[in-house]
Amino acid sequence: MRDVSIIGIGQMPVGEHWDLSIRHIAHHAIDAALKEAGTEQVGALFVGNMLSGNLLQQEHLATLIADFSGLRNVEAAKIEAACASGASALRIGYMAVASGMHEVVVVCGVEKMTDTSGGSTTAGLATAADAEYEAAHGVTFVGLNALIMQRYMYEFDAPMDGFAGFSINAHRNGARNVNAMFQKPISLDTYLNAPMIATPINIMDSSPICDGAAAVVLAASEQEGAYVTGHHPGAVRILASSSANDTIALHDRKDPLFLEAAYVSSQKAYLQGGVTPADIDFFEVHDAFTIMTALSLEATGYARRGEGWHLAADDAIGPDGRIPISTLGGLKSRGHPVGATGIYQVAEAVQQLRGEAGQGQIADAAIGMTQNIGGSGATIVTHILGG
Amino acid sequence: MRDVSIIGIGQMPVGEHWDLSIRHIAHHAIDAALKEAGTEQVGALFVGNMLSGNLLQQEHLATLIADFSGLRNVEAAKIEAACASGASALRIGYMAVASGMHEVVVVCGVEKMTDTSGGSTTAGLATAADAEYEAAHGVTFVGLNALIMQRYMYEFDAPMDGFAGFSINAHRNGARNVNAMFQKPISLDTYLNAPMIATPINIMDSSPICDGAAAVVLAASEQEGAYVTGHHPGAVRILASSSANDTIALHDRKDPLFLEAAYVSSQKAYLQGGVTPADIDFFEVHDAFTIMTALSLEATGYARRGEGWHLAADDAIGPDGRIPISTLGGLKSRGHPVGATGIYQVAEAVQQLRGEAGQGQIADAAIGMTQNIGGSGATIVTHILGG
Repeated sequence: MRDVSIIGIGQMPVGEHWDLSIRHIAHHAIDAALKEAGTEQVGALFVGNMLSGNLLQQEHLATLIADFSGLRNVEAAKIEAACASGASALRIGYMAVASGMHEVVVVCGVEKMTDTSGGSTTAGLATAADAEYEAAHGVTFVGLNALIMQRYMYEFDAPMDGFAGFSINAHRNGARNVNAMFQKPISLDTYLNAPMIATPINIMDSSPICDGAAAVVLAASEQEGAYVTGHHPGAVRILASSSANDTIALHDRKDPLFLEAAYVSSQKAYLQGGVTPADIDFFEVHDAFTIMTALSLEATGYARRGEGWHLAADDAIGPDGRIPISTLGGLKSRGHPVGATGIYQVAEAVQQLRGEAGQGQIADAAIGMTQNIGGSGATIVTHILGG
Repeated sequence: MRDVSIIGIGQMPVGEHWDLSIRHIAHHAIDAALKEAGTEQVGALFVGNMLSGNLLQQEHLATLIADFSGLRNVEAAKIEAACASGASALRIGYMAVASGMHEVVVVCGVEKMTDTSGGSTTAGLATAADAEYEAAHGVTFVGLNALIMQRYMYEFDAPMDGFAGFSINAHRNGARNVNAMFQKPISLDTYLNAPMIATPINIMDSSPICDGAAAVVLAASEQEGAYVTGHHPGAVRILASSSANDTIALHDRKDPLFLEAAYVSSQKAYLQGGVTPADIDFFEVHDAFTIMTALSLEATGYARRGEGWHLAADDAIGPDGRIPISTLGGLKSRGHPVGATGIYQVAEAVQQLRGEAGQGQIADAAIGMTQNIGGSGATIVTHILGG
């Protein structure tokens, strides 16, 4: 298996792009990534996307985007794994290069959640759950997360405001990211007075509905010098890539308060990368809801069971903390265009590792981890990146 | 890159499964394939599917199916490329094993097109076209194919009944396949009197809407002996696998009567497999419409431009012909559960190569080719299989 490097990244600012179609925002990210990589010789385009069929009445999405981006006679396929579609697509690109099937692969995560032609976005997001056993009973995606958070607070005696620090950290960091949807810090008061969405989840616990696209260009590490020359930023290596699943329905979990798939996929990644949690300089968590942040930190080895929320209070997660998270805003502040999120996480990690994260830069960042979660914890994909 | 073998296949009979959910039919095929392979040690499940989000309000499909099939802590992702979703998923599984990322991978193609909870199946199929430039103007998927067929008949002086032989051959062969939706032969009269769907395409030119699931189990060829033992059927090797795309919209093609992506992907496959068209003993074409059969035969080197339809009249395509096609019924008679079709084609090729195709057996079949087409020719995936 060949080592694989990221030789270019591109990001569309996250927001509500009412004037642009899904093909436009994807093309923007792909074009930027290919320009950075300094090549147009692409073998395949893999697109991470969850909702185009449901919300835009557009399947065959990867070929549509390849076509619009001028990539003809290449392989093109869309990869879907709910909110983990982005990182799942990256894994496919990784295997395509690692196997030797392709020399250069573009992976684009894209989602258009505003200005849709199909059903409601809330109903669309519920398709990440079990349609026949969860969604059919009317539970929304935020509703499932609210059930988890409620139980967590009960079991571990966590107060409602115990999660505030995750949101405050994300917004402080997002304010330093030009691609973030919300580029302003919030105060504890803002969090405490935020409207409730599904008790106990308030709007400041939740990531926004938005449009976005991010892309990365992959090549064999042994070849990276052929692409990353003089004026291009340095390549970043994928040290580990792993994916694991759990039951899709929350009620089928052995323990709904433990992200077993996060545990399994991070353990596999630590093993492949030859690192421990202590070696990771920053961690792009999947903070779709603050409860997911707490559970991720526990399952990946940064906190004991029931104590993940303590890290928010301790500010262990700030830019100078023990394990900086959501360093450029995370899903909460940068935004969560679902199928694109996994690629934004990786693109931001590349910015950090290149020392190009601007005011959001983590000092001496050498190894970063990203984790992308689909559903209420049913598909979890972990990547570890290094210089 | 490691060589990859198919060590087990499973097929659900194609039909209208009103009593079964998508998870049930997928599980049926996966379970059968794993039993044949004699292993439960699976690293990943890749699911080829086009319409679950649109028609069933179910995304996150691969994890749903993995869960229901008892595959826990594995990688799971859905691959979508319109009607080429099945073979596209097979390519991902192929790369996963070839790269060394996984030892055993299951690839399942599945589609549930009857008894849906969402929009109409006709509208769903139109999501394979360009939503903003084709479907928005009301053109259906059969409508696009009718435009191609009309132009073909005009350019090449092909009569309306010139395509009858493709349909008659498919139904004759499908009558010998227990998994086929329509297990009865048709006469020329049946074809000539068939109701028109979208002139000049009649119902006997068209493949049916249906439910189905097929699965294959992949392993490294060097390891196939570890799985394919005594009572199991022999393994079949993937000699070549390739994919190519074209413009998604028909009106953007340089020449709408030439399947450039079929040409490119078959040429790549011939090169990788070290074979020529003459070496292929049978060819599972993507006969969603008879016009596609003619165009495929031309683009892959079996007929000159404008002469593909002659092969139907010559019966060159029958079981004893120069290039037998649709040997177990093809999309026309076995059925076309869209995201599953690419895997049915491959499973049937494996049956042929093992000598287990029963009354539909092609004598001395040693090398077979399958071709899976997405949209009106925008994504085309070719596989060549051998003993």
